[in-house]
Amino acid sequence: MQTSQAMKSAGSGADVKVTGTVPTTALPFLAARLDQSLPVGNEGAGTVVKVGSSDAAQALKGKTVSMVGGAMYTQYRLLNARDCQPLPAGTTAAEGASWFVNPLTALGMVETMKREGHKALVHTAAASNLGQMLNKICTEDGIGLVNIVRSPEQAKLLKGIGAKYVVDSSAASFKDDLTQALVDTGATVAFDAIGGGKLAAQILSAMEVAINKSAKEYSRYGSSVHKQVYIYGGLNTGPTELTRSFGMAWGVGGWLLTPFLQKIGREGQGKLRERVVNNLKTTFASHYTKTISLTEALQLPTLAAYAKRATGEKFLINPSKG
Amino acid sequence: MQTSQAMKSAGSGADVKVTGTVPTTALPFLAARLDQSLPVGNEGAGTVVKVGSSDAAQALKGKTVSMVGGAMYTQYRLLNARDCQPLPAGTTAAEGASWFVNPLTALGMVETMKREGHKALVHTAAASNLGQMLNKICTEDGIGLVNIVRSPEQAKLLKGIGAKYVVDSSAASFKDDLTQALVDTGATVAFDAIGGGKLAAQILSAMEVAINKSAKEYSRYGSSVHKQVYIYGGLNTGPTELTRSFGMAWGVGGWLLTPFLQKIGREGQGKLRERVVNNLKTTFASHYTKTISLTEALQLPTLAAYAKRATGEKFLINPSKG
Repeated sequence: MQTSQAMKSAGSGADVKVTGTVPTTALPFLAARLDQSLPVGNEGAGTVVKVGSSDAAQALKGKTVSMVGGAMYTQYRLLNARDCQPLPAGTTAAEGASWFVNPLTALGMVETMKREGHKALVHTAAASNLGQMLNKICTEDGIGLVNIVRSPEQAKLLKGIGAKYVVDSSAASFKDDLTQALVDTGATVAFDAIGGGKLAAQILSAMEVAINKSAKEYSRYGSSVHKQVYIYGGLNTGPTELTRSFGMAWGVGGWLLTPFLQKIGREGQGKLRERVVNNLKTTFASHYTKTISLTEALQLPTLAAYAKRATGEKFLINPSKG
Repeated sequence: MQTSQAMKSAGSGADVKVTGTVPTTALPFLAARLDQSLPVGNEGAGTVVKVGSSDAAQALKGKTVSMVGGAMYTQYRLLNARDCQPLPAGTTAAEGASWFVNPLTALGMVETMKREGHKALVHTAAASNLGQMLNKICTEDGIGLVNIVRSPEQAKLLKGIGAKYVVDSSAASFKDDLTQALVDTGATVAFDAIGGGKLAAQILSAMEVAINKSAKEYSRYGSSVHKQVYIYGGLNTGPTELTRSFGMAWGVGGWLLTPFLQKIGREGQGKLRERVVNNLKTTFASHYTKTISLTEALQLPTLAAYAKRATGEKFLINPSKG
């Protein structure tokens, strides 16, 4: 996303238009999107005001439901019943609005870890809303989680919510701290929100050192234990720099929620969805910096604020707000 | 491997000792190997001079066989019958010596491509002995292969043996040439011998552009087609630089022959081994710069020559040579 400095605003109120220039280098990747209107908003929640005749639809009448299916930045949305998840009594639409992407991503990481045969995991930019959820899930499920943060303040925040392994990449002892946490937990998979820079390689190297500490036999190709980093975000949009000092049994790749959900199927998804909506006030609670209207979302200073994607800053859009 | 400049030779003849210093940064990865003797030589061939009483062993008596199992840099080797592969009449030990690593790696790439659902593949440093084998296999099997080479001479060499898609990374039109070859073949997996630098990312980006040329729908996360680069060598030992301009459906990882062979099992291996020994004079022929003795292998100028790992330079060790 571009910063608002490069953007221009014209018109006012509901007619405001924000425009910006796409960098030439990005154009080849956008060929299929040029001149298309792109409705936005992955997830939301609200009250069902009208229903179809099917039993599934009738059962939702008047209920507060969480929703998924895109184009959510709107006051009214027509959806299939199966894309709505009724919320338990006493849960508000605001509490249920961020029910899908972050909670299912956090659960998806733990599920991916299990399915690919790892016994513990690493998470970076770990003080994020998502990272805090992941800590709560791992505590509940008794899973080893190594949190990598970028400041002492973030480390303190996570320790405050009960995180056991927190390592600070700004500390001089980072490499040793990380290796020790990997020895203690046995983590061989990491989920990385940062993407750019040397962190992914540092994690793989530390994993390799941790594994070799208990290795009985030397192999010139490194340990045979597969070490994996999944990049699911791009807080650092610069190149990922991999100094390959971690043997040959390794992988780095993109991780995205939708293909993961396709892989586990409707039944697998159902279980995760149930777990989320039943714990929206605790494990899966989101905290917002501000609630803004659709019009406010296009005001340049507000746009600049949420485009920073800063840890601890999260905006809730209320399409019904004037 | 260190260059011989940093190495010292002492003694002479069969008693020669070559020593060198391991960089401090590499020491943590070598912890399990320190003070250990490491027998070398992955593969070889020779005449069976003595056999055990089993039928399988008896059947090999007097035969010329190819062998695998390590510690091959020796005049006599005791092996299980199953680690020997009898050569067809008229095939010499020299012809059968490099039967395993390169041929099975080339076949393993094609097999991996098929098993992971890709329909064509990319190979880098493609003018190598291995790369030439891969071209012959792909021509025989009717599989699309994009060869990436680093000079016009190498391109000419490959075209001379019938390669259809050859792109030269030293050409100004490299990016466009590569994209066009990917459009033509539909290749979405690459095997990279180079490892360091920007090439892996260039391949993934070109794959993404090629896929998006035929995309019907825009996704902000890029195409949903999985693009994979397997790094199986390190001709460039510098960091792999991934500018992530290829969506989220991608992976980069190490690829090694042994884990692949474990995955396909003894029966799968048997088929590939049969194919190799029956075509050692054609598809799987190796060409050597020089045949050297074990003593010559430790002479510093010779060591410097093979440590270069240059395309087109390959040494055959004959342990029976005085």
